[in-house]
Amino acid sequence: MTTEISSLDPRILARGREFFASISGESPSVFNKGWWTGKVMDWAMKNEDFKVQMFRFVDVLPYLNTSESLSRHIEEYFAGEDSNIPDVLKWGATKTKIGGGLVAKVLNKTIRSNIESMARQFIIGQQAKEAVKGIRKLRKDGFAFVLDLLGEATVSEVESAAYRDGYLEVLDAIQKEYAKWAPLGGDKGELDWGHAPKINVAVKPSAFYSQSKPVDIDGTVEGMMANIEPVFRKVMDMGGFLCIDMEQLKYKDCTVELYKRLRTKYPDYPHLGIVFQAYLRSVDDDVRGFLAWAREVNLPVSIRLVKGAYWDYETVLAKQNGWPVPVWTHKPESDMAYERVAKMIMENHDICHFACASHNIRTISAVMEMAGEMGVPDDKYEFQVLYGMAEPVRKGLKNVAKRVRLYCPYGDLLPGMAYLVRRLLENTANESFLKQTFADEADMDRLLENPEATLRRQLEGKCVAPEPEEGLQRFDNHPMVDFTVEAERLAFPGALEKVRATLGRKVPLFIDGQDVETDDVIDSYNPAKLEEVIGTVCQAGVTEVDRAVEAASAAYLSWRDVSPQERAETLLRAAQYLKDNIHEYSVLQTLEVGKQWDQAHADVCEAIDFMEYYAREMIRLGEPRRMGHAPGEMSHLFYQGKGVAAVIAPWNFPLAISVGMVSAAIVCGCPVVYKPSGISSCVGRGLVDMWKAAGLPDGVFNYCPGRGSVMGDHLVDHPDVAVIAFTGSMEVGLRIQERAAVVQPGQQHCKRVIAEMGGKNAVIIDDDADLDEAVLGVLYAAFGFQGQKCSACSRVVVLDAIYDRFVERLTEAAESIKLGPAENPANYMGPVADKGAQENVLRYVKIAEQEGTVLVKREVSDDLKATGCYVPLTIVGDITREHRIAQEEVFGPVLSVMRAKDMDEALDIANSTRFALTGAIYSRSPANLERAYREFRVGNLYLNKHSVGALVERHAFGGFKMSGVGSKSGGPDYLIQFLDPRLVSENTMRRGFAPIEEGDDWFV
Amino acid sequence: MTTEISSLDPRILARGREFFASISGESPSVFNKGWWTGKVMDWAMKNEDFKVQMFRFVDVLPYLNTSESLSRHIEEYFAGEDSNIPDVLKWGATKTKIGGGLVAKVLNKTIRSNIESMARQFIIGQQAKEAVKGIRKLRKDGFAFVLDLLGEATVSEVESAAYRDGYLEVLDAIQKEYAKWAPLGGDKGELDWGHAPKINVAVKPSAFYSQSKPVDIDGTVEGMMANIEPVFRKVMDMGGFLCIDMEQLKYKDCTVELYKRLRTKYPDYPHLGIVFQAYLRSVDDDVRGFLAWAREVNLPVSIRLVKGAYWDYETVLAKQNGWPVPVWTHKPESDMAYERVAKMIMENHDICHFACASHNIRTISAVMEMAGEMGVPDDKYEFQVLYGMAEPVRKGLKNVAKRVRLYCPYGDLLPGMAYLVRRLLENTANESFLKQTFADEADMDRLLENPEATLRRQLEGKCVAPEPEEGLQRFDNHPMVDFTVEAERLAFPGALEKVRATLGRKVPLFIDGQDVETDDVIDSYNPAKLEEVIGTVCQAGVTEVDRAVEAASAAYLSWRDVSPQERAETLLRAAQYLKDNIHEYSVLQTLEVGKQWDQAHADVCEAIDFMEYYAREMIRLGEPRRMGHAPGEMSHLFYQGKGVAAVIAPWNFPLAISVGMVSAAIVCGCPVVYKPSGISSCVGRGLVDMWKAAGLPDGVFNYCPGRGSVMGDHLVDHPDVAVIAFTGSMEVGLRIQERAAVVQPGQQHCKRVIAEMGGKNAVIIDDDADLDEAVLGVLYAAFGFQGQKCSACSRVVVLDAIYDRFVERLTEAAESIKLGPAENPANYMGPVADKGAQENVLRYVKIAEQEGTVLVKREVSDDLKATGCYVPLTIVGDITREHRIAQEEVFGPVLSVMRAKDMDEALDIANSTRFALTGAIYSRSPANLERAYREFRVGNLYLNKHSVGALVERHAFGGFKMSGVGSKSGGPDYLIQFLDPRLVSENTMRRGFAPIEEGDDWFV
Repeated sequence: MTTEISSLDPRILARGREFFASISGESPSVFNKGWWTGKVMDWAMKNEDFKVQMFRFVDVLPYLNTSESLSRHIEEYFAGEDSNIPDVLKWGATKTKIGGGLVAKVLNKTIRSNIESMARQFIIGQQAKEAVKGIRKLRKDGFAFVLDLLGEATVSEVESAAYRDGYLEVLDAIQKEYAKWAPLGGDKGELDWGHAPKINVAVKPSAFYSQSKPVDIDGTVEGMMANIEPVFRKVMDMGGFLCIDMEQLKYKDCTVELYKRLRTKYPDYPHLGIVFQAYLRSVDDDVRGFLAWAREVNLPVSIRLVKGAYWDYETVLAKQNGWPVPVWTHKPESDMAYERVAKMIMENHDICHFACASHNIRTISAVMEMAGEMGVPDDKYEFQVLYGMAEPVRKGLKNVAKRVRLYCPYGDLLPGMAYLVRRLLENTANESFLKQTFADEADMDRLLENPEATLRRQLEGKCVAPEPEEGLQRFDNHPMVDFTVEAERLAFPGALEKVRATLGRKVPLFIDGQDVETDDVIDSYNPAKLEEVIGTVCQAGVTEVDRAVEAASAAYLSWRDVSPQERAETLLRAAQYLKDNIHEYSVLQTLEVGKQWDQAHADVCEAIDFMEYYAREMIRLGEPRRMGHAPGEMSHLFYQGKGVAAVIAPWNFPLAISVGMVSAAIVCGCPVVYKPSGISSCVGRGLVDMWKAAGLPDGVFNYCPGRGSVMGDHLVDHPDVAVIAFTGSMEVGLRIQERAAVVQPGQQHCKRVIAEMGGKNAVIIDDDADLDEAVLGVLYAAFGFQGQKCSACSRVVVLDAIYDRFVERLTEAAESIKLGPAENPANYMGPVADKGAQENVLRYVKIAEQEGTVLVKREVSDDLKATGCYVPLTIVGDITREHRIAQEEVFGPVLSVMRAKDMDEALDIANSTRFALTGAIYSRSPANLERAYREFRVGNLYLNKHSVGALVERHAFGGFKMSGVGSKSGGPDYLIQFLDPRLVSENTMRRGFAPIEEGDDWFV
Repeated sequence: MTTEISSLDPRILARGREFFASISGESPSVFNKGWWTGKVMDWAMKNEDFKVQMFRFVDVLPYLNTSESLSRHIEEYFAGEDSNIPDVLKWGATKTKIGGGLVAKVLNKTIRSNIESMARQFIIGQQAKEAVKGIRKLRKDGFAFVLDLLGEATVSEVESAAYRDGYLEVLDAIQKEYAKWAPLGGDKGELDWGHAPKINVAVKPSAFYSQSKPVDIDGTVEGMMANIEPVFRKVMDMGGFLCIDMEQLKYKDCTVELYKRLRTKYPDYPHLGIVFQAYLRSVDDDVRGFLAWAREVNLPVSIRLVKGAYWDYETVLAKQNGWPVPVWTHKPESDMAYERVAKMIMENHDICHFACASHNIRTISAVMEMAGEMGVPDDKYEFQVLYGMAEPVRKGLKNVAKRVRLYCPYGDLLPGMAYLVRRLLENTANESFLKQTFADEADMDRLLENPEATLRRQLEGKCVAPEPEEGLQRFDNHPMVDFTVEAERLAFPGALEKVRATLGRKVPLFIDGQDVETDDVIDSYNPAKLEEVIGTVCQAGVTEVDRAVEAASAAYLSWRDVSPQERAETLLRAAQYLKDNIHEYSVLQTLEVGKQWDQAHADVCEAIDFMEYYAREMIRLGEPRRMGHAPGEMSHLFYQGKGVAAVIAPWNFPLAISVGMVSAAIVCGCPVVYKPSGISSCVGRGLVDMWKAAGLPDGVFNYCPGRGSVMGDHLVDHPDVAVIAFTGSMEVGLRIQERAAVVQPGQQHCKRVIAEMGGKNAVIIDDDADLDEAVLGVLYAAFGFQGQKCSACSRVVVLDAIYDRFVERLTEAAESIKLGPAENPANYMGPVADKGAQENVLRYVKIAEQEGTVLVKREVSDDLKATGCYVPLTIVGDITREHRIAQEEVFGPVLSVMRAKDMDEALDIANSTRFALTGAIYSRSPANLERAYREFRVGNLYLNKHSVGALVERHAFGGFKMSGVGSKSGGPDYLIQFLDPRLVSENTMRRGFAPIEEGDDWFV
């Protein structure tokens, strides 16, 4: 295929040159340095820091409703060390002669109005009427349009409905006058150029359904259909064209499916388009599959091919989640894919209309030449460019191709700013064709060369990424589950079925390498399906605990002296075992504690991470460290495991936290007596299989589920236990601490208690917070896994100025999510862990109702209620710091909303509990973020992120005050808590003679 | 001066060439590769590891009395990974045809006998008779002699007396026949060459007095005189010559003083010599001063000038103690000094006889030319070389200069091995003239060149040591006191007088920047002088503790947020204040707790070290650490001070441990309420002045001495105390732990207890231990500062095979030390800290007497007893692990001796207590050292070193089991105990756009 295109190259080049010649001397308005926008763009391209600040400022601007707020932000974003705003920003305000604070006020107003003008350049109108007026003018200039309603993020069904209604409204407005519009192309008919509907709208499918998620394609498409159909029907009524835009990769499969359903539901109406993105590595397959489907159903289709607007986002997202990067990482690769796929589409012009959307003159020229070469009829392809951008290109296009359509966003400036930022990025990216062409004035032939050649040139002389070194690689978190991959979506139901077939068995203890059965047993059940028994779990009594501690003590003597490297390797084998069985380990949590797929999977990932991380940490710490540098003396600091560790684990991260504590102890040389929670003892038993697979010697890991009231104190008090690692409630944690501090007869050491306890975590919503993110973040942190995380958000502290807007969106969002069993991935929230938890949460719901004003109280249906441990999703307002609900940990889906008059008060409220575990702030004020960094005193603080889902290493986890005794799990200081440091110092001088060693302080 | 010598260079060169020509083709026997010694030397020169092992093996050989022991050591020292002994060692045994284990036995015997032969080469005889026979032969060959009795280390007065008697014995033997010896030089008179006594002996002055120490010159010289005088009188009787050798630098001043006393006491007897070492940077001044003295007293003197034999030792010692290196660091500098000083001596030939002791032909030639140039008469100088070495040189010398004297060691092979090692080192050092001449066959002209030229050449192209970088330098321990420096010796009495004048005042509390007086006071007194009140110390009650905690809590809010750098700088200023007042801070300890000068000084050094180290540690930890490397996310881990710290300090390291705990808390941002021990509250008050001088804000440090029974629990229980740092007894430590674990009403955090508690520390004496070092090490560890250190040795576990020898030397040594007040530096041991300590130790002395056999029980005189808190120095034998005295901490000068049949049992005994603080082993078995490294499980283990005097960083200090809760003070994990880790993770992606930061996982 490459060669075919290459054979066209001379003609493409010639056409391109002609194109350039036709627009010679013209420049897009955004680069016009005579105006504010051009100056700012120029400065941004030269100064990366300014660019970041500028674009972020543009993003926050619509939220700055008061002059105080505007001034403060301008100061924070732009004033450097000398408190001076860069001159470029002051343009248009310099002539002002007013003194004092007024100067600043005028200046600030000027900056705002300049930015708003800049935004308006890309937006055809803020109101329907204005938009229609703009369209009229465009058509007069000979350009067709495709209208796009700004406002991508819908966090609730109310907002999705509003998005739908926005389209209906603007279509209404157009309807009133479109009959009067003369068709383009000189023709007299109803259609532009004789074949294209005059009305053309583009929609963002995810905005039609606030609960869209890739794991639930059916549910998502169904949700989208409900809102897109009225719009499509209206478009059809008006004989218009509807194009379904392509958004982030995560919606790709849903979007394609949506198109297919809509297209087949109205098979007779051909004017329905879809977009594909050439920057996706999958684009060839995507388009090929789509065309094959069109042939299969034998319906004409339409594709707009773009390069793609989310490159940064997709890349960063992939890197953050450990996924393969889904987009091409070299710009020419996207250009190559574009030409390749454009050719594929045009080869199918009999069944597929093609909209070539690009500003790149090489791409445009190639498409034109290919179309000519293949004899694609004029009515089978058109060109599209963005409104307000690349005016010379659109002019050139009109000269040559006639059929040019402008993509015209309209709507409020608020969502418009997000759009503006994307456009600014596009114009200023180093690899942008527009920047290279019009700002950098790059060599024309270079710009027109075959992208394959460009790529080859770019790769030349680039050092190839070095082969990974032998041995253990740098720690990286295990990849999160990627539900855009079909196999992942299918793996869960499969594993669920498999695991379900094994339920209900008797679960024995495991002591000194042997299964041990007891008479005392407890059934562990599915909290969403009370009659489903997960396992009948044997319960250790005092005798079994003694046996287990004895076995562990015996194992200590040899395990302690196994080399750190070898101990680490055991962990790595265990981690591999979990990787190999990740879906089984995930769904068992879904069944036993009601954890949603993605979160259950994340729990297993975290277990893997703990072992991968601690293994590396032990290797690091295992290397004796030379102390000092005196010749004649060799001093080494190294560590030895403290002794037997009792690990007392919670049920909420039943695998991750268990494995974290257990593997830390084991890798340090401390054999373990492990007591899982009674609620999750079957998941806990999974550790036995894991350690067996890893080849851990007998006695080093002992599995002892049991009733806390029977054997808890006994285990803690045992004189041969050296370390107690506990995660759970504050009450139990403090009790353990107190008991462990009492030295028992025969005890040879002081016990170390590592206790991670509760939280009462707050999220602060600043008055400039990005609510699209803040609402979803709070929702997830408060109600993900039913709020049963020590890191969960249970207080949201909202600044007065934004209180109403936030609360409205939050409550609407909370009303929109789906409730029900976790094994159905459509459900956002399910039942709590067991009947005890249910009772406890219900008690707090009552307290919340008494203390505050209920904003949301969502119950499941009575049917569901009868089958599982459901509690209402509760949001309660008017809560102040004196309320119990603002101070006590609930460990369930109950969220208190608290009002703060300013950031001082917000921080004060946030810090006002005995706990200090997690916290978050959503703010776009650099000063407030910095202040929170310093003064929001919790163990894990998140800036513009939700407070849950801490990753090993990256978010080393743990709090202080009453939230924790001990250092951060998954952090660099964790392992030393299980270790006693030893120092050995050798005098190497004998008879006045000492060998000089490397590192000695000696003469050069 | 340089130029003068240089003008002689052509003649020196000519003479040197002639000298070389005269010995052409000859080689010293040690380099003769036809024999075992030559082969081994050759191998050692080529293989540094083998050299180290070989010399160490030579050192231990005399201790290997059984064939099992010999075999084991040969295996451990020489068998590599393939268990093969290097061929070079097998020489002389290869022809053996016997099979099985016998081969090894024969081989081992051969190795022993080969090494013994090698030693005998350097030793003129093991018995007096043999020595006399050797001398006779030498004289027959035309060489004079100087006889040296081997056996340097005398650890007791018994051994010093034996050393003296050894000389008397050999002189007796000589006396019987020396009249028969014909004088050398063909003359007929009584004197060799007409002027030199036939009898010439050299003595090591330090061996005459086991209690020699540089701090006490008077006492040392007095002690030496007692034993040297009988020898000198005998020599005088026989008309002989006595030369006082120069040993390590520490004895230099004593030795010069000894010479002066002896010389002036017997002014009429001229045949008394002294040695100076050209390798000392001070040599010019030393000799100049000595000659000036001779002129002043107008007595003829004699100097032997050597280059010096302790270069390695002096260098390593200086580096280990932070002292300026006292020797030249380039070999040619010593050679230059030699020529310079030789010239100075010969310029004074009218009053000073000169013995030129060198094997270096350049040096010898230079001396000859200078002597000729200056017209030094023959009877004013002679040449000396070592017996058994450099035979060609001595032959050449005899040819030219006639007057050649051989330095002839005689005596047991046991001390002889130490001498052998020094000789082997001398022969194999890369810069050795002998090695270069006879082994390397270096260019003759190079060997004869002016050392100034050699130096210039060596320095050329060498990179000059880089200028120290700006800012904080690497941590180094503050230099130990160097009593070879007169100013240091004088500083202590001066400071003592000054401080004494200030005693007896009222000592107020210090709270929130204010002195606070109370009605309740306690006198702190001098334990060596009960009537001397150090200070009348105000006692904090509950009210004062509350005020102090309140002040600290208030200060916390701001001090916590002072930057780590700034907090660190406060510590550095405090450290500087201590450096500036080090003698005052030292002697106050001597007065208040009876600490000896050097140890009191070391305590202040340690206080300085803690602050210098923790300051750097805080700067290290203060830098937020990026976690992970995901783009779009910036995660930082950093630390914040936990809150108010209660520091409860002991009296035994009254400044160091107090400052360590206090400064750690303060640098971490934790204000401190400090309770010093009642015994050392005046030293504790020194912290107030220190922090004031450092500019610490009010309230951050509060000084609260008080009665434990009144305010101890109250302080520990206080809900606003977050950290308790304690050093003291196990009983109190456990009590603190228990109480601190109980959460009090209003408490907002879990308390962290850092407790360093007791020890019951053992030193193992292996059957091959170097007893010279082991006896002194155990003595110091057990009785230094009256055994009142948590690190003190209170059990010595001796292997059966060496038990009797060790115990004999140990008890003799213990009987030799001086007892009395610490303010007299002659005293090794003084009174214990106070009456309470006295009572407690006396109780344990009684227990020891009941449980074991008293080996030593030394009491002070009744006079002393009446004035201070003395207890007997007690050593008790026949102790087994069941005895209380083997299990309970005494904290006083009571040492238990325990017998172990082998290393298994020794380790078992050593590990058999509840404590695990310090330990030591003296062994020359590589396998046993390695085993101890692994299996002697204590916090601080010392191999071939005593167990006390841990240095910050190098010997980061602290134990486990019942010895400690918490990590090592002065170690890298210490500070985090005062800190809560915080993690802040920022989502830097906005609108899909994230700036890429350095360190992000991004594309190349």
